[in-house]
Amino acid sequence: MRTAICERLGIEFPLFAFSHCRDVVAAVTNAGGFGVLGAIAYSPDELDTELTWMDGQVGGKPYGVDVLVPGKIDASALDHRAHLLDYIPDRHRDFVTHLMGKYAVTAPSKPMTAVADELGRRVTAAGATGLIDVALKHPIGLIASALGPPPPEMVAAAREAGVPVAALVGTVEHALRQVRAGADLIVAQGSEAGGHTGEISTMVLVPQVVDAVAPVPVLAAGGIASGRQMAAAMALGAQGVWCGSVWLTTEEAETAPAVKRKLLAASSLDTVRSRSRTGKPARQLRSAWTEEWDCGQESPGPLGMPLQLLLSEGAMARIGAAAEKGEPGAVELVNYFVGQVVGQLDQVKPARQVVYDMISEFGEAVERLARLSE
Amino acid sequence: MRTAICERLGIEFPLFAFSHCRDVVAAVTNAGGFGVLGAIAYSPDELDTELTWMDGQVGGKPYGVDVLVPGKIDASALDHRAHLLDYIPDRHRDFVTHLMGKYAVTAPSKPMTAVADELGRRVTAAGATGLIDVALKHPIGLIASALGPPPPEMVAAAREAGVPVAALVGTVEHALRQVRAGADLIVAQGSEAGGHTGEISTMVLVPQVVDAVAPVPVLAAGGIASGRQMAAAMALGAQGVWCGSVWLTTEEAETAPAVKRKLLAASSLDTVRSRSRTGKPARQLRSAWTEEWDCGQESPGPLGMPLQLLLSEGAMARIGAAAEKGEPGAVELVNYFVGQVVGQLDQVKPARQVVYDMISEFGEAVERLARLSE
Repeated sequence: MRTAICERLGIEFPLFAFSHCRDVVAAVTNAGGFGVLGAIAYSPDELDTELTWMDGQVGGKPYGVDVLVPGKIDASALDHRAHLLDYIPDRHRDFVTHLMGKYAVTAPSKPMTAVADELGRRVTAAGATGLIDVALKHPIGLIASALGPPPPEMVAAAREAGVPVAALVGTVEHALRQVRAGADLIVAQGSEAGGHTGEISTMVLVPQVVDAVAPVPVLAAGGIASGRQMAAAMALGAQGVWCGSVWLTTEEAETAPAVKRKLLAASSLDTVRSRSRTGKPARQLRSAWTEEWDCGQESPGPLGMPLQLLLSEGAMARIGAAAEKGEPGAVELVNYFVGQVVGQLDQVKPARQVVYDMISEFGEAVERLARLSE
Repeated sequence: MRTAICERLGIEFPLFAFSHCRDVVAAVTNAGGFGVLGAIAYSPDELDTELTWMDGQVGGKPYGVDVLVPGKIDASALDHRAHLLDYIPDRHRDFVTHLMGKYAVTAPSKPMTAVADELGRRVTAAGATGLIDVALKHPIGLIASALGPPPPEMVAAAREAGVPVAALVGTVEHALRQVRAGADLIVAQGSEAGGHTGEISTMVLVPQVVDAVAPVPVLAAGGIASGRQMAAAMALGAQGVWCGSVWLTTEEAETAPAVKRKLLAASSLDTVRSRSRTGKPARQLRSAWTEEWDCGQESPGPLGMPLQLLLSEGAMARIGAAAEKGEPGAVELVNYFVGQVVGQLDQVKPARQVVYDMISEFGEAVERLARLSE
């Protein structure tokens, strides 16, 4: 299969794999797709280590790096004099303490002031630039910007290095803004997607974005975890697909076992678009965590980005540890970002196999369609 | 184009048009698609008149009839001794009066006790059966049941008449229940659809339903108003598509002018899934009506089906009349059921032209896909 984007990036299949797990990224790239590593989990030094490992795995095949740069961010993240955690109101801390008690989570809290400051500032333009500077020292084939438009420094640095910039969007208006900001590739992501997502479904969004930004190429994201869905996305006019959720249940994924079990058991009704983990609407498994924040009578409501992210990351570290020990309250609370395709994910496969299965089913779907028109 | 469903129903294109407007239904059937008339707006006698007109228009080509039979319904609708409007609490009446004042709607209210009783009971199994008995006296090619499973009497009567039964579903579980209840054709409707709809997007729902109910044929609904979207739906495994919103802006549609202007101007962000018009979640244009009911501080919250339907139909009759006179408050309030594809609808075309454009673009999309695999 050859689309213009395959030629441009030097890949066999226009199947992009977004993952926080380097093993998944390497496996997809080696199978002929294009792996993209989510960099938010790493400090610049850690990212350098990961990408050095990657370079050793993929033998020159292309891969990319994704950073998170919200268009709007809580002012706290830009205040370099204070500790970010000091901005979290007592009501919100107390609510988390209340939840830990109510669900009998025994894992202790860890001091995370330094970690929080680092993590919170990583989602600012300045923080993302630090990650991008590291990424551009490696032979990467793509930089992607989730959420807001890529900062000018990112675009300039990528241009100089000859690396295309991709940007995720959930509306036509955002797509046009991203193209004006210098994006070379648009990822149109429907509301059914996992993680930060908008309100318009993939079926409706993709053709509108394709028409609005032509000739800039568009990848489709959201609701795509099979070859039939890949064929559908490309029938809509996308040049390829960007998948995230499908990798969470692969053999290579570092998904925590308690979460993986929940993912494998979940139906497509078991996700919710909630602000409870990052402060911005993000689709994730519905769990006691999302229910308590979104519908609980005592909920103070989520904070903005990045304060809610810091608060929930701290809590989720404890919840995750307790869930792995089998504490039932923690198992009720624990969740992860995932799209509605979670209902299709019912077995653990190697990431390479996911790529091959999707491409094979894509071919069957296209042949079936072609026969209809005979 | 020939799919099994085309052969079975005797149509050229597997493009189903759901409309409350007989002119749209006749035009689509005459263009080679399959028109389906929403019967909820009619009494049995009125439906008989409409279908007699239809029979004179389509020259033996097949068309269908759609009834609304909610699986769960407010007990009031089953109480044949009282007037249904008597079940509406004062708080809810007062809220509507408050809205009419706040938005300066001057059109007078009309007595609608008798109309309400008739309308409210039409959405019960007994009421639907009255409509179906009339429909089966005409040479119809399909009976469709929106919302709950088709009542056993409907299935039995349709079987005896040799008319297939279609049922709309929003989850795999509902699809299996519908097949057990005797549905011959499943319409898998994604969350982006207009009207009563579930939470799972078309991209995710359709392949799951296709696999679950095979070999029962599946039509895709939700997010489909172009040939690319039709091709995508069929790549997902659907044997055809069921479209509603796209007909609202056709020349033939009886859509009120004030509403049509709003539809043509709306973007895909301008819809909301709200209980404010029928008591069950239904996607519609976001307007002051949905905002006040869903987010207004004074909102008493919606009633169940059919009481909310009756309350809002009475109010919308006044609002619609005032909106046609150009009253600005009424224009803010007025809305209609429509899916996210509303963002694509920006010109008025004959319904026949919509069919031809979709089929032509479908062919182009399939050819484009086929070339990728060469």
